[in-house]
Amino acid sequence: MKITAVIMAGGRGERFWPKSRNNRPKQFLSLTSDGETMIQKTVKRLSPLVDAQDVFIVTNAAYTDLVCDQLPDVPKENILAEPCARNTAPCIAFAAAVINRKYDDAVMLVLPSDHLIGYEDIYISTLKKAVSIAEEDKNLVTIGITPTYPETGYGYINFGKEAGAGYEVERFVEKPDLPTAKQYLASGKYLWNSGMFVWKISSIMDNLRMLMPDIYEGAVRIGEAFGTSEFTEVLVKEFSAFRSESVDFGIMEKADNIYTIPGSFGWDDVGSWLAVERINETDDAKNYIDGDVIAIDSERTTVCGGKRLIAAIGVEDVIIVDTDDVLLVCSKNNTQDVKKVIAQLKEQGRTDLV
Amino acid sequence: MKITAVIMAGGRGERFWPKSRNNRPKQFLSLTSDGETMIQKTVKRLSPLVDAQDVFIVTNAAYTDLVCDQLPDVPKENILAEPCARNTAPCIAFAAAVINRKYDDAVMLVLPSDHLIGYEDIYISTLKKAVSIAEEDKNLVTIGITPTYPETGYGYINFGKEAGAGYEVERFVEKPDLPTAKQYLASGKYLWNSGMFVWKISSIMDNLRMLMPDIYEGAVRIGEAFGTSEFTEVLVKEFSAFRSESVDFGIMEKADNIYTIPGSFGWDDVGSWLAVERINETDDAKNYIDGDVIAIDSERTTVCGGKRLIAAIGVEDVIIVDTDDVLLVCSKNNTQDVKKVIAQLKEQGRTDLV
Repeated sequence: MKITAVIMAGGRGERFWPKSRNNRPKQFLSLTSDGETMIQKTVKRLSPLVDAQDVFIVTNAAYTDLVCDQLPDVPKENILAEPCARNTAPCIAFAAAVINRKYDDAVMLVLPSDHLIGYEDIYISTLKKAVSIAEEDKNLVTIGITPTYPETGYGYINFGKEAGAGYEVERFVEKPDLPTAKQYLASGKYLWNSGMFVWKISSIMDNLRMLMPDIYEGAVRIGEAFGTSEFTEVLVKEFSAFRSESVDFGIMEKADNIYTIPGSFGWDDVGSWLAVERINETDDAKNYIDGDVIAIDSERTTVCGGKRLIAAIGVEDVIIVDTDDVLLVCSKNNTQDVKKVIAQLKEQGRTDLV
Repeated sequence: MKITAVIMAGGRGERFWPKSRNNRPKQFLSLTSDGETMIQKTVKRLSPLVDAQDVFIVTNAAYTDLVCDQLPDVPKENILAEPCARNTAPCIAFAAAVINRKYDDAVMLVLPSDHLIGYEDIYISTLKKAVSIAEEDKNLVTIGITPTYPETGYGYINFGKEAGAGYEVERFVEKPDLPTAKQYLASGKYLWNSGMFVWKISSIMDNLRMLMPDIYEGAVRIGEAFGTSEFTEVLVKEFSAFRSESVDFGIMEKADNIYTIPGSFGWDDVGSWLAVERINETDDAKNYIDGDVIAIDSERTTVCGGKRLIAAIGVEDVIIVDTDDVLLVCSKNNTQDVKKVIAQLKEQGRTDLV
């Protein structure tokens, strides 16, 4: 069966401000020294399994030009522009309906656009296992990440009996506190919920019809209009009427036949500026330095330079990000507070800097 | 007797890089929130004692335009351009010879251009005491700063018997180590050597003739040429031939009749970026912030902004200085290392940034 991929690229990702902005969020940035953007890497690493012709990008209408520029091999009609943000369930329903219209049934990989994978061959073989399960019956498969430490910032997947190449899912759980996360890790029965899914179009459409019939019906009408002159009009009308809902809550936590494949492929969700030193090579003093920088006596510091010289002297555990109009100097302990700055700027009406 | 002031403004001051540059050293910068430059403040605070007409600025030839711009009330002919740097003895001899030519004898205050004074009325009354001693005999007077802690970065003046409004100087001593500095402080007989001098033109010229006859003779020839068409030619020839020597070593450590006045007028030599929080008001978290800055959870941090927004998040004891072409992020423990960056830039031939 044909394998297609749906890349979810509508996120606004404030955590990489000031490099990420409303008009260029994280998935369209390069955070690695090779210069490739996150979404370019996402499509490229799929190439052993999915042809660019079969890749679909669901994104905000404001970003379609960025997608076109960065992914010239993806057909323009595969760039699916959401007229507004409605979380993952409407996004997936929209994409599934369009693919259904284009190919009838097919396998559909659903993947975030802004994660990194360290071991791409393992990633591909993990996806192949997921495809093998998804091709049977009405199975819905999620890729779980084998946890390496008791992270409290992710949801977890509790799995049970072995089933083919994977496991039956017992339940999905919310972000745990630290003692609970430690128990999960010790049990060996929990995986990080990475937001990657594999299923047939027919499976997800059936589940949408049963569990989210309103969204199913709107998606079907969008699918029927795909390729016609009414498409944009129908899309705006139907999509805007969707309620905002995650596929986790709307489908995965309620459906039967949920399976998971444990993945150990160097997954990184690149969740904040702290990730940059993790996903790049650092120097002897554990600094990651990009750009025109003179660093003296500095340690464990991340410098993302812009057009000017940066002199970093005696600084430790700091993140320095220079752009044309904003400079960020942030302690590694405070990367979550970048959002507070954005909030202040919005309050002040300084939308050009957000 | 007429009182004149000679402001020494030839220094290149690397310690305020990147705001200070070869083409705009510290004395021509504003480091206080009132926007006045160091040299403007220096001339302004003298106004109760010395008219701008009687102020002479000795500076590098490259800075005469800056002096003209910043001090429009100082007569252009009083801006004395050194063709090259030769330390303080030739600088003072040059100025003394010119003033001698212009006014015959006069009192001459010799003052650095890049220090700050917290209590200007006390400063003026201290200078008046020095003038009263200098007007007698061939006395040479230096203003000493009453030390407030055992600083090891300054030379000290050891004073003895009371003499009029001041004290006889016993000896000048080099920068001490910490135990010695502590002894100096405890003895009550030592002052910081601030590089401020008061004497009559006739006194310093006599001492130059006796102790530095080569420089004396050259200076006399420069003075004789002052106001004539040969002035520049004579100045370049004579001044370039001078050896580089400080007035401390060349005159003060050897002459008789040396007196000092202890000064307690909130003197600050503004020696590095650390001074900025000292000479300005800070916020509740001890931050000094100038420019378009959003500071969150930051403490004891100095931010001198440029044209862009700076977000400082969770940083402590850091100095951030933004200019059009260079950004400095420096730990307060490492302000001396700014010179290392300048050295690297010179090695790399990046003179535009120095």
